Amino acid sequence: MQTHAPHVSDDVQVLAFDVFGTVVDWHGSIVREMAANYPHVDGHSFALAWRAGYQPAMRRVMAGELPWTLIDDLHRLILDGILPGFGLAHLSEAERARLNRVWHRLDAWPDVVEGLTRLKKRFVICTLSNGNLNLLTRLSKRAALPWDCILSAEVFRAYKPDPRTYGGVASTFGVRPEQVMLVAAHHDDLTAARGCGLRSAYIERMWEFGMQEPKDVSPQAGNELHAKDFVALAQRLGC
Amino acid sequence: MQTHAPHVSDDVQVLAFDVFGTVVDWHGSIVREMAANYPHVDGHSFALAWRAGYQPAMRRVMAGELPWTLIDDLHRLILDGILPGFGLAHLSEAERARLNRVWHRLDAWPDVVEGLTRLKKRFVICTLSNGNLNLLTRLSKRAALPWDCILSAEVFRAYKPDPRTYGGVASTFGVRPEQVMLVAAHHDDLTAARGCGLRSAYIERMWEFGMQEPKDVSPQAGNELHAKDFVALAQRLGC
Repeated sequence: MQTHAPHVSDDVQVLAFDVFGTVVDWHGSIVREMAANYPHVDGHSFALAWRAGYQPAMRRVMAGELPWTLIDDLHRLILDGILPGFGLAHLSEAERARLNRVWHRLDAWPDVVEGLTRLKKRFVICTLSNGNLNLLTRLSKRAALPWDCILSAEVFRAYKPDPRTYGGVASTFGVRPEQVMLVAAHHDDLTAARGCGLRSAYIERMWEFGMQEPKDVSPQAGNELHAKDFVALAQRLGC
Repeated sequence: MQTHAPHVSDDVQVLAFDVFGTVVDWHGSIVREMAANYPHVDGHSFALAWRAGYQPAMRRVMAGELPWTLIDDLHRLILDGILPGFGLAHLSEAERARLNRVWHRLDAWPDVVEGLTRLKKRFVICTLSNGNLNLLTRLSKRAALPWDCILSAEVFRAYKPDPRTYGGVASTFGVRPEQVMLVAAHHDDLTAARGCGLRSAYIERMWEFGMQEPKDVSPQAGNELHAKDFVALAQRLGC
């Protein structure tokens, strides 16, 4: 398998990973949390509603309508907004705080630990997520993710797709942009990374939005690599 | 051993580790590097001279005489200054760059990997070093240090002993200062951390400055814990 993409990987030193959806199954984890604690709620719709508030909330921060805000706090803002629509307006402060921390307890996709462990032998592997450092650290510790470094929007004080995040990975590690490859399950993230000179690897996560809503994971032009999962990526990169 | 210090550790969630001297043997690593590549140079004196420039260089940054500068660049400034005194003024740019990266290749003390691995089971373990993220990441990867997160002066844009660094660990992880314990082989670092409300654990590193210059490692008042090394610290903390 090592002969598939030598031109892509020869010069790459750093693999930076998107986290929500790419590394962890946010939808399934939230569905399981709701089924365990609030079984009368439609967990699928709840997870989608919570996640749907995410991009608009970040845009408000980047537009200056809100001050710089950690994702934990944006998640809480969105949560408070959607609870009444799901019959959960009565949740106490402690219950809301606990539910909000479900984002610290997201489960990794089953291929992730093996894939990262193999990729780590050859590359510096780090996160590049809009999640804050606390969220990423606790999630990674619980899921035993072997990162070399946890990088976050929090470090660069800008959310993806701001160029400061993609360029920030390269400057942090003292390498050229083309020596960094972003690994993500989202084409918009990968496109923005390529716009900053990074390489890009698309990962199929067909069930990111649940079994009811399979995602179109067909290859798109532009990405240097397209892999089913992290183990397949490791094989493609000769690890 | 678990009964020795339950009052100290019960509420602690995060252990933040100083790195140079506490986790890694900068002196011995530089001496070995010089012996291998520049055997006519007195490696002991060279290592001490390089390290001696470190605090004054950071003070110049914090005083505003120099702009914010990564430690990799401060190390290089100091290196360029000391090379002529050791008969190495002729080193090329490439040789200087390679020698400067010895700080990315420092060896950990022999107890570190076992101690961290045990401590990680109970605590969030992170660095809190003036070293930049690239230096800390590459050093940690090479030495297989199992950090949950790498925190650096670079994240807080302030060097220890600035309170923003110690307080920054607590706020990053969403805990109170007294839920963070700094682990270090230097009393001034620990004293500054306690001034910010953190707990402190002193680690004996008698040979930090080489076998020729054993360090006084006798206990000092104020530190909640005093341990010979990281394995002893793990035992004290019931790990």
